[in-house]
Amino acid sequence: MIKVGIVGGTGYTGAELLRLLSRHDGVELRVLTSRAEAGRRADDWFPSLRGRCELAFTAPDDDALSACDAVFFATPHATAMKLAPALVERGVRVIDLSADFRLRDAAEFQRWYGHEHAAPALLAEAVYGLPEVNRDAIRGARLVAAAGCYPTATQLGLLPLLEAGVIAPDTLVADCKSGVSGAGREAKVGSLFAECADTLMAYGVAGHRHLPEIEQGLRQAAGGPVALTFVPHLTPMIRGIHATLYARLRDPDCDLQALFESRYRDEPFVDVLPPGRHPETRSVRGSNVCRIAVQRPQGRDTVVVLSVIDNLVKGAAGQAIQCLNLMFGLDERSGLDVVPMAP
Amino acid sequence: MIKVGIVGGTGYTGAELLRLLSRHDGVELRVLTSRAEAGRRADDWFPSLRGRCELAFTAPDDDALSACDAVFFATPHATAMKLAPALVERGVRVIDLSADFRLRDAAEFQRWYGHEHAAPALLAEAVYGLPEVNRDAIRGARLVAAAGCYPTATQLGLLPLLEAGVIAPDTLVADCKSGVSGAGREAKVGSLFAECADTLMAYGVAGHRHLPEIEQGLRQAAGGPVALTFVPHLTPMIRGIHATLYARLRDPDCDLQALFESRYRDEPFVDVLPPGRHPETRSVRGSNVCRIAVQRPQGRDTVVVLSVIDNLVKGAAGQAIQCLNLMFGLDERSGLDVVPMAP
Amino acid sequence: MIKVGIVGGTGYTGAELLRLLSRHDGVELRVLTSRAEAGRRADDWFPSLRGRCELAFTAPDDDALSACDAVFFATPHATAMKLAPALVERGVRVIDLSADFRLRDAAEFQRWYGHEHAAPALLAEAVYGLPEVNRDAIRGARLVAAAGCYPTATQLGLLPLLEAGVIAPDTLVADCKSGVSGAGREAKVGSLFAECADTLMAYGVAGHRHLPEIEQGLRQAAGGPVALTFVPHLTPMIRGIHATLYARLRDPDCDLQALFESRYRDEPFVDVLPPGRHPETRSVRGSNVCRIAVQRPQGRDTVVVLSVIDNLVKGAAGQAIQCLNLMFGLDERSGLDVVPMAP
Amino acid sequence: MIKVGIVGGTGYTGAELLRLLSRHDGVELRVLTSRAEAGRRADDWFPSLRGRCELAFTAPDDDALSACDAVFFATPHATAMKLAPALVERGVRVIDLSADFRLRDAAEFQRWYGHEHAAPALLAEAVYGLPEVNRDAIRGARLVAAAGCYPTATQLGLLPLLEAGVIAPDTLVADCKSGVSGAGREAKVGSLFAECADTLMAYGVAGHRHLPEIEQGLRQAAGGPVALTFVPHLTPMIRGIHATLYARLRDPDCDLQALFESRYRDEPFVDVLPPGRHPETRSVRGSNVCRIAVQRPQGRDTVVVLSVIDNLVKGAAGQAIQCLNLMFGLDERSGLDVVPMAP
Repeated sequence: MIKVGIVGGTGYTGAELLRLLSRHDGVELRVLTSRAEAGRRADDWFPSLRGRCELAFTAPDDDALSACDAVFFATPHATAMKLAPALVERGVRVIDLSADFRLRDAAEFQRWYGHEHAAPALLAEAVYGLPEVNRDAIRGARLVAAAGCYPTATQLGLLPLLEAGVIAPDTLVADCKSGVSGAGREAKVGSLFAECADTLMAYGVAGHRHLPEIEQGLRQAAGGPVALTFVPHLTPMIRGIHATLYARLRDPDCDLQALFESRYRDEPFVDVLPPGRHPETRSVRGSNVCRIAVQRPQGRDTVVVLSVIDNLVKGAAGQAIQCLNLMFGLDERSGLDVVPMAP
Repeated sequence: MIKVGIVGGTGYTGAELLRLLSRHDGVELRVLTSRAEAGRRADDWFPSLRGRCELAFTAPDDDALSACDAVFFATPHATAMKLAPALVERGVRVIDLSADFRLRDAAEFQRWYGHEHAAPALLAEAVYGLPEVNRDAIRGARLVAAAGCYPTATQLGLLPLLEAGVIAPDTLVADCKSGVSGAGREAKVGSLFAECADTLMAYGVAGHRHLPEIEQGLRQAAGGPVALTFVPHLTPMIRGIHATLYARLRDPDCDLQALFESRYRDEPFVDVLPPGRHPETRSVRGSNVCRIAVQRPQGRDTVVVLSVIDNLVKGAAGQAIQCLNLMFGLDERSGLDVVPMAP
Repeated sequence: MIKVGIVGGTGYTGAELLRLLSRHDGVELRVLTSRAEAGRRADDWFPSLRGRCELAFTAPDDDALSACDAVFFATPHATAMKLAPALVERGVRVIDLSADFRLRDAAEFQRWYGHEHAAPALLAEAVYGLPEVNRDAIRGARLVAAAGCYPTATQLGLLPLLEAGVIAPDTLVADCKSGVSGAGREAKVGSLFAECADTLMAYGVAGHRHLPEIEQGLRQAAGGPVALTFVPHLTPMIRGIHATLYARLRDPDCDLQALFESRYRDEPFVDVLPPGRHPETRSVRGSNVCRIAVQRPQGRDTVVVLSVIDNLVKGAAGQAIQCLNLMFGLDERSGLDVVPMAP
Repeated sequence: MIKVGIVGGTGYTGAELLRLLSRHDGVELRVLTSRAEAGRRADDWFPSLRGRCELAFTAPDDDALSACDAVFFATPHATAMKLAPALVERGVRVIDLSADFRLRDAAEFQRWYGHEHAAPALLAEAVYGLPEVNRDAIRGARLVAAAGCYPTATQLGLLPLLEAGVIAPDTLVADCKSGVSGAGREAKVGSLFAECADTLMAYGVAGHRHLPEIEQGLRQAAGGPVALTFVPHLTPMIRGIHATLYARLRDPDCDLQALFESRYRDEPFVDVLPPGRHPETRSVRGSNVCRIAVQRPQGRDTVVVLSVIDNLVKGAAGQAIQCLNLMFGLDERSGLDVVPMAP
């Protein structure tokens, strides 16, 4: 049994780690930290876990965490980069669900997050946690930076096209729609029910922190520069991301359906829909699956890709557990065998 | 492996049976019928099942169903009472999720459902499928009529009080709130998103078909006549039932919390909350659990019970599987080990 | 033109006052205060008001407010009771939308709100702002305490029965369902979209601050003691209150429908539905109307009343404007001629 | 007073016409037809109209309709093209809310709607009802084809750019999100609450009937060919359309903000937001306003336009009334003076 700890378990990604890990056969959850809720049982905080988790939150403690084989950081930004180095040094393998180790370039991190990176050396070593791209590197990694929610849906939708070179890499548009849980469990006016229900809006058009993360991944796939216009939208759903992706075709004879099916044939968590289907976000609700459809409307030269994930699972906790499984040589699907819930 | 069939698998209870049974170790799903969708794969109809279920719908066929050990009816009313008798006669054990076999009195059935009962003999034999009341009878039953959604939430909330005789049985009020999936997947104007979202209404105040079912169960618990005022409400949720139950206390010294905890101590799917808590429907979303809280506001003589279930699970498919497990001597929790999904 | 000010205009009741007053012919909005947002235009804070309101928030200023004929307080509790006395003394008529002046008994206020009342003399003079009960007193009042949202829906539903003496006043149950805007625009975890969507829960069962307010009004209607069990529920709607009211009939021969129609015949904002109908909250969305239906299920001795309002209009801003109209001799319906929006 | 009739008043656009016309000073509603609901009062069908509309539905009758000055068709497609010619001939001015007269080319109509056009002569005469483009032509028209919902939001967002020639007209993307009321009040499984809530999907990617309507308008604005990739999405809102529009800039020095402000300076129902803002659909809920923002992310050469309307108002009933006002020389804003409702 792998001994596991979670730092910062009171938010939605924390809750989701607890939900999924409580049914993971190969993992024993040992430590669950929260400074604010120390002493409180997790199932008091999340009543959905009653009967499933007997742990209580504790204040973060280096020794307790160091006794774990692996530690998840489900913390706001700028926490993991301070605490992870010591843990890694003591042999603990770390999976960070925040953005601290996702951008390879410390200068770019500083530009988008507004402060200097606290652990540039570890940043250089960190592996970007998107198994469909970095499976082997994740296996051997000491520190994995689990890919973000928008970045996962967007990259999985564009990778086959960029890797095959069939689209013009400077014509990319990602029009993304997210459920409100993506904003976290923090008390913010903008996330209130009465602000978010029965309405829809774009945000961050001028520049969202996921843009450099996505472009970094797309550049690698394209083997060269890319230009992405990324517009996220807040939509009245609890969970779910729907990425609608547009690009100009360079190769009009390409069999797009075959390209996607071939790229993802062996992926346990990517499902390419048959031609003509449109994935719904609820078709992956609660599961680690990404469902993708590719179309070429009117036979014109713009390709449209539809890519859906559950932002809290494949976009956060599930992806992190998938990485954990790889790091410890388990079946990649362990603990992730959840059938999506629809309706 | 128990060979299982589902008659009428295209609705929400059908989808839920498929979701849950696809992870049930002791069951092999053999037949899935739908006259309208015969020939279509289930995962084409419910894309959330892609990768989980390879079966296609077939037209109902007696021989195929008779080759099963057990058959679920997830049909509208008035179907099971026509088809079940032949199956039972051929040794198939039947679990009916419709209301056809819930009311013991054929005359009462006719009064509420508007037509004569087609199988009165089998009706007399049928066992009401509420394991918390009829566990032993279910074990030996040839035909189980799984309890309805409102009836489950309401009965589980009132049983301890009526069995102990601590409330006046003619003062009962059940103010129940249901998600829209309770109305089924039939195309009806009243179930449209634009009709049901951001609004709330009572319905059926003059008389709802679940009233006689609930009163039948409560009479048995009380050992005498009861009078229940039952008001269902349609609320803008997909799933979930919240029953708010009121009764006049006869015994003001009763320790209500202890009474409930004692009554449900050994029940795998009933969770009595600590004093002062209020259960949310999402705390049971997707699971077979009923969570209950009991309070006595202001120390007055009205007791308030809050009881929540997922109408599609403990109120339908999960309950039916729980009954199946009992009927075939399996662990009662097989296939029902789902952690509720919140948020 | 009546010169009007609003203290605390950044919340939902503030927004609603602005929406309604912007179309009120007899009113000129002069002052709009907010300490936090001073200097910001209201239509920047509420973009739905662009083109409708050119005012900016200012810091509260006694002289500016004193130059008004009337001032609304759309503030959290414990503000109006500090600021209103000086205004009233300078001849400004005050309409308080908070709970500060609703309970007549200062001791009871202290018991429920946890601190001493700051203006007990003014409390004694304040008129409870429910026009259907206190129309004449409101006309002459210097300070009106507009009735709360749950109290309005509940009292309007029970008044005809209590005034006529046809129900037992110690058997009252009010099972109330509210939209989330009732919790205000304050950043609270419990009001987040991801906490409130697709779920439903009771709260405050042990004692909610609206209980004494409702019982005070019901006592007056009954001319004696009453006992009410009040259970509010948080439901996934933006707006709307649905009160489902239960009482034991004392007079089984009473023509309930006629009783309600007669009681509200001349009320411009109370609509008694025909027999057998169930009001939806959306049928009053955005309007100052209360729709009511009365039924007697199964002909038994429990009467069920269904009463719906828009919590932000008849439960707050609209009610306050209705009171203003009365206080200044305007047509009671001025500024309130909004057709409900459904769907 | 203009005497007005509505053909097909039982759907959402019918309800919205009734809501708005009930407060239109210059209009008297005389006839309201519905074959299915003939004899039923409109306020029984739409309880939100109680106290606002005393009319009952009648079976369609040529004489009654011919006695009107103007008739709205709020019918499914293929009705107006059969009934409108006779009315126009008798001097009645017709405003069609369906798609029957929107496409100028009868062959294109046949290609997208699957049957021959029944009134090609009238089609040639019909004026496309988008006042921001065709104001003068609408004034003199006998038959106006009110612009559709997606087409309105999309065209208003792209017109300034195309008319000024600052974007490449073959690089247009319209990623549109609609509330479910856009699918009408017809009983369809795909519009059920339990199908549409808490999920999001694209549809019609291969070709949606609004595509030729939009391209027709954009061609006219561009003065030449255009190529638009149009992807509509179904989102869990009752009302609202959010069009997110993308195009490649040809003129990088263009002052986009000034361009939009100048284009719409005199438009009563188009509101250009200040730089950096993102319009929410709720900011126009219930009103005839279109709010637009234009941005150029990262200073790159892709322009992003955000355009929101209420699909039932500016996308249907409000637009039709705006056209009516123009046709009869009334103030264009008559009956449309509704303040948007938010929250």
